[in-house]
Amino acid sequence: MIYLDNGATSFPKPPEVIDAVADVMTCYCANPGRSGHDMAMKMARGIAETRQELSKLLEIDTPERILFTKNCTEAINLALKGILHAGDHVITTSMEHNSVIRPLRHLERSGVQVTVLPCDRRGRLSVDLVRKAIRVNTRMILITAASNVTGTKMPLKELGRLALRHGILFMVDGAQGVGHMKISVKEQHIDLLAAPGHKGLLGPQGTGFLYIKEGIALRPLLEGGTGTRSKEQKQPCEFPEGYEAGTVNGPGIIGLGEGVRVLNRVGVDVIEAYEEKITGRLQNGLAEIPNVLLYGPQDCREKTAVVAMNIVGMNCEKVALLLNDEFDIATRAGFHCSGLAHQTIGTGDLGCVRLCPGVYTSEREIEEAIAAVREIAARVEA
Amino acid sequence: MIYLDNGATSFPKPPEVIDAVADVMTCYCANPGRSGHDMAMKMARGIAETRQELSKLLEIDTPERILFTKNCTEAINLALKGILHAGDHVITTSMEHNSVIRPLRHLERSGVQVTVLPCDRRGRLSVDLVRKAIRVNTRMILITAASNVTGTKMPLKELGRLALRHGILFMVDGAQGVGHMKISVKEQHIDLLAAPGHKGLLGPQGTGFLYIKEGIALRPLLEGGTGTRSKEQKQPCEFPEGYEAGTVNGPGIIGLGEGVRVLNRVGVDVIEAYEEKITGRLQNGLAEIPNVLLYGPQDCREKTAVVAMNIVGMNCEKVALLLNDEFDIATRAGFHCSGLAHQTIGTGDLGCVRLCPGVYTSEREIEEAIAAVREIAARVEA
Repeated sequence: MIYLDNGATSFPKPPEVIDAVADVMTCYCANPGRSGHDMAMKMARGIAETRQELSKLLEIDTPERILFTKNCTEAINLALKGILHAGDHVITTSMEHNSVIRPLRHLERSGVQVTVLPCDRRGRLSVDLVRKAIRVNTRMILITAASNVTGTKMPLKELGRLALRHGILFMVDGAQGVGHMKISVKEQHIDLLAAPGHKGLLGPQGTGFLYIKEGIALRPLLEGGTGTRSKEQKQPCEFPEGYEAGTVNGPGIIGLGEGVRVLNRVGVDVIEAYEEKITGRLQNGLAEIPNVLLYGPQDCREKTAVVAMNIVGMNCEKVALLLNDEFDIATRAGFHCSGLAHQTIGTGDLGCVRLCPGVYTSEREIEEAIAAVREIAARVEA
Repeated sequence: MIYLDNGATSFPKPPEVIDAVADVMTCYCANPGRSGHDMAMKMARGIAETRQELSKLLEIDTPERILFTKNCTEAINLALKGILHAGDHVITTSMEHNSVIRPLRHLERSGVQVTVLPCDRRGRLSVDLVRKAIRVNTRMILITAASNVTGTKMPLKELGRLALRHGILFMVDGAQGVGHMKISVKEQHIDLLAAPGHKGLLGPQGTGFLYIKEGIALRPLLEGGTGTRSKEQKQPCEFPEGYEAGTVNGPGIIGLGEGVRVLNRVGVDVIEAYEEKITGRLQNGLAEIPNVLLYGPQDCREKTAVVAMNIVGMNCEKVALLLNDEFDIATRAGFHCSGLAHQTIGTGDLGCVRLCPGVYTSEREIEEAIAAVREIAARVEA
């Protein structure tokens, strides 16, 4: 199968990741931070190494401020529910995923104020618009690193500086950014970064994390066993234990560490350049097909490895179905959990087909995908 | 290593579990419920099969009411925060884990009323005490299936009947019960069952679930992408999607399905009988050592595979350390995230060493463990 659904989950995984998961499960799958025996200690060390690899990748100085979650959605919920109070104002954009929009809408009911700034039809945000939206009670600017619908990269550095200058928290949803583009919590002045392990970081599903800068207080989302202060009935608030109640996904986190190790070794800049190249080829190839509509930035340097498209006169689900059934190509059609983003780019009623190459996608596969879309599009013309 | 820490995480895992995780990660690790291509559909089918296996094991008629979580702690938090309102009264016991006690203490601050009933020094609960504690506003009886400190089995069937008669929700923390003893949501009238995947169910870490009976409304704990109703900014409340926001741990859940398949094939009654036998041997062997103190029920039919002990005159951490360092035996010392349970059994200041055999523990390993404790205990006497 030609896998162009990396925006949902990256595939294939590096062999190191799969081997690590199997090795942990076979050899030392004990409970880290609870028991003190050799297997548990080995597990704990493996998890600490993942924190180190992530810290290196994202230029984090405080690995203990990386809180492992099951996915990016949990990380976003943890951040928003753990920080915001009634009366706080949050600025976000119309290109956000439902993992951002839905918790914010939920929090509005308890008095959090939310401004959703409109992006343009390519999914781009004006920093000036953000500046003008700042109020005295603005607590947080929250934005995706890159749109999951169009791949549009957001102006993280400028927004980080703006937030810093105004004493506002800057939070980034890294779901489509980490592993695909340079993200540095230092350079971009990021206070909170939520990310999944199973997308650009090449790790297993069931992993994710929230980075939260030192000095920012956080309420836990889950209370439970932490392996610390067992006699206290109140949830402890040490980092990271207090925010990782219950048994963590040990094999998954160690597998994630291997994925990040690959990224650190290869270099995100190298991956970004390769993905830019193949995404550019895919986009240019599709652009030549008469009845194909493309969305998002035309210049691939402005986006990650996402091509959003429709064939005029054919439902997007039908296109994805034909790509799967007749050409063995995996894509995703519909609204991609981002109804608002589709309204923004003009596909609010249509949805679109999303083709997401990845670091393991070959140029040959890109050519085959272009040819497949051309063939399907020709049927509509006929 | 002789692994007697199955109460924390079961080990080893059946080869089927490890193979399934590796197979999913290698061959079809896509996003279930989001995309419609073959890999995503295969993943979705695998997850549905896990729901079927769990339904068979636990006599659940409505597999869609099984909500996958990352662990049991998340499942308990989801249930309590998703059901209870200010003014609701909850009855629980002094043998509960912090994953029950801590969220309840948290909810007390927003007006939930909590009664923690005392158990006896063996960790046993009087059903009569529960009956007398029922108030007009009692919404839930919440109890562990078996204590994680002493293994004490709780009177689930009697409590289920009592709750049913009074129109009260009956919730069970299955962390130490599922896979070790018969749990049937039908027979025991269980309305809510929280459980981890990585203990008695022999699955991977990073898995767990909440079963919630049909007709009981639940507020989600996490809002985010569900792959459904993408255009709606409000969290959908379909089961299970509305309660599994974000990407689920596909390989983990499919691995869990293989673990449960093993249980369904072998039969929990067979496992229970074997664990009863080896736990009995361990307990009897330790009881013969002069300065060893044992906690919990003396009759192994009253408990799961847990032996809680101390050596008079030696700190429990020291005992566990010696068992690890000199005898290569994995146990767990301390308070086991259950301070209240330790107060109940009289080890509130001491903690204890917990030895948890499992279905893969051999009789020879049990004998070696007894010999090791005997040798360590002799040093104190000397």
